[in-house]
Amino acid sequence: MTDASNGAPAFVVRAPSATYPVYVEWGALDRIGGRLLETSLRGPVYVVSDSTVAWMYAGRVEQALGKAGLESHFYTVPAGEASKSLANAGELYAWLAEHRCERGSTIVALGGGMVGDLAGFVAATFLRGVAVVQAPTSLAAMVDASIGGKTAVNLPAGKNLVGAFYQPRMVAADLTTLRSLSSREMASGWAEAIKHGLILDPSLYRLFEERVEDLLDLEPEITEEVVRRSMAIKGRIVEEDERETLGRRTLLNYGHTIGHGLEAATEYGSLLHGEAVSVGMAAVGEIGHTMGLISREEVERYIAVLRGFGLPVRAPGVDPVSVLAAMKMDKKASGRRINWVLLEEIGRAVVRSDVPDDLAEATVRAVCSPDD
Amino acid sequence: MTDASNGAPAFVVRAPSATYPVYVEWGALDRIGGRLLETSLRGPVYVVSDSTVAWMYAGRVEQALGKAGLESHFYTVPAGEASKSLANAGELYAWLAEHRCERGSTIVALGGGMVGDLAGFVAATFLRGVAVVQAPTSLAAMVDASIGGKTAVNLPAGKNLVGAFYQPRMVAADLTTLRSLSSREMASGWAEAIKHGLILDPSLYRLFEERVEDLLDLEPEITEEVVRRSMAIKGRIVEEDERETLGRRTLLNYGHTIGHGLEAATEYGSLLHGEAVSVGMAAVGEIGHTMGLISREEVERYIAVLRGFGLPVRAPGVDPVSVLAAMKMDKKASGRRINWVLLEEIGRAVVRSDVPDDLAEATVRAVCSPDD
Repeated sequence: MTDASNGAPAFVVRAPSATYPVYVEWGALDRIGGRLLETSLRGPVYVVSDSTVAWMYAGRVEQALGKAGLESHFYTVPAGEASKSLANAGELYAWLAEHRCERGSTIVALGGGMVGDLAGFVAATFLRGVAVVQAPTSLAAMVDASIGGKTAVNLPAGKNLVGAFYQPRMVAADLTTLRSLSSREMASGWAEAIKHGLILDPSLYRLFEERVEDLLDLEPEITEEVVRRSMAIKGRIVEEDERETLGRRTLLNYGHTIGHGLEAATEYGSLLHGEAVSVGMAAVGEIGHTMGLISREEVERYIAVLRGFGLPVRAPGVDPVSVLAAMKMDKKASGRRINWVLLEEIGRAVVRSDVPDDLAEATVRAVCSPDD
Repeated sequence: MTDASNGAPAFVVRAPSATYPVYVEWGALDRIGGRLLETSLRGPVYVVSDSTVAWMYAGRVEQALGKAGLESHFYTVPAGEASKSLANAGELYAWLAEHRCERGSTIVALGGGMVGDLAGFVAATFLRGVAVVQAPTSLAAMVDASIGGKTAVNLPAGKNLVGAFYQPRMVAADLTTLRSLSSREMASGWAEAIKHGLILDPSLYRLFEERVEDLLDLEPEITEEVVRRSMAIKGRIVEEDERETLGRRTLLNYGHTIGHGLEAATEYGSLLHGEAVSVGMAAVGEIGHTMGLISREEVERYIAVLRGFGLPVRAPGVDPVSVLAAMKMDKKASGRRINWVLLEEIGRAVVRSDVPDDLAEATVRAVCSPDD
């Protein structure tokens, strides 16, 4: 466990457009005021949160900011993906203007991925850019969305259609917030963390195999190590390919091609994002194996790990035709071919655009077929 | 006049975030299709324009794009500053989604500053960034807004409060469009062009002194030279200080501190932007002289040039208290002091934050007092 008196960040992300510290600690929210000052971030501080998170943590954050002599203002949006709208961005802009947010002020996104995306987008565009700190309170937001600067709101026509690449100036992940998450929310976050091991770090992956019980119990030391290392992998990829133009950041989409298709086919109503990604990773392992890349044992090994974390690896009953249609619409498609991320082995991923259509289709049909 | 068969751009802007060619020609709109292809920009092309500009130029642009084999779609917003709203951005996003605009598509902003700002902001944020080409059809948009990547929409709380720094991938300024502008619109544009000479280029400034009649007549060769050189100055400053963080880009605000105050005090209803800047430049010349920086002769010399281009150099009847209040609110204020741009001599500007409040106040009162 990180020593509370030790001010060093877990790691630093050095992306082309910004360099920022990432804190991963038990109790990070209680130290956020001092950390803002150490990072040369100034008040007033505008904390954006959602109705679920605010009542649990806004008090702690207000106290921590006050202790550092920072003036703070709090804004709460309703919990749920529907809040990630242009209309809500408009109301948040108006609130910031009314409360005299300036270029030198700081916005803190306190919450899960929805809050991080909405507040991050608003920070990217209000006054053409106000400093934003990501304070993720879900495991999924910690290991994925809080790092890398992808911000967005949804349109009626689709999710994340409006957004900006805008790096945070600091990330403060407080591991104590994990204790309030449901087991499904935790599993959804573990899916992304396991993914980071699968695509780039076999030794991180092995921790998921070996320490599953400790991780499910949130044993402090191993939880901190695994979350930190998973976040650091995301940070490293962002350093190498900030805007997803070089192919490197594409690796993070492991399991996402079919995963997105499943989410869209179920209208984002039944599967959590990480659950859909888990099913997608299991399915695409089969594709990789069929194409001669990875052994069946390795695929079965990691499918067992996903199951061990309570994740689904199939989606019986979902309409495969809808899944396939949504995959074709996916904006990550380049031209007419889909860029698939496949594993060559555990810890080594590649991008391939030569997955045969009939193999993809058969795989999706198998994933969606009723349980054996 | 530029040879129509010569495909070389007038100059290239090499900003940290993007490098792009700038074409300044009589007839640039008729060659825009080929130029897009030469710049590796792809279709479909989404042309955004306003109700005044569209009927004059959309046909020519459609034909030029068709000649190059580029599919095109046209979207028109009502003319006028009120169209630069978040609501209109939302409708434009929906239209782009409906017409399947993708990351590899191209948006063309065909119009004056309002269209450039709105379409530029939408391009910056749709799918986290679609290529945008600025095709300015007003002199003010050519010499100022089309270069440099400042995009924005207005909020009820204030102008340009939401936006992004997002460089265009190409600028195509067609000088023939100047022929359809009113003399007030032309004068407003000349104010910004004269400003570029005043702050950085005494030889450009001398052309305004010596060739005023030819410029008012839009004599082709000198008009092209002056517009091109003025645009190039803007481009050079953007190369040096893309995000206005190093002080260099601040020089472009010459005349803008009082100018913005005048615009705000008159609720953007009576003075065109360049007219307000002209008054601001005349007024701030007095401040520079009083502070011992520039001779009275030089100030009077350039005030005569502004008058020669039909520009106001005073604003009798405007409420000076409102002007001063708006100046204090100006978001360019850094902390409690205003960063004033002053001239040391014609062609050399400096940023100063030590203008005494009473001097600023007396100057604003003099500018607003009834005519002598």
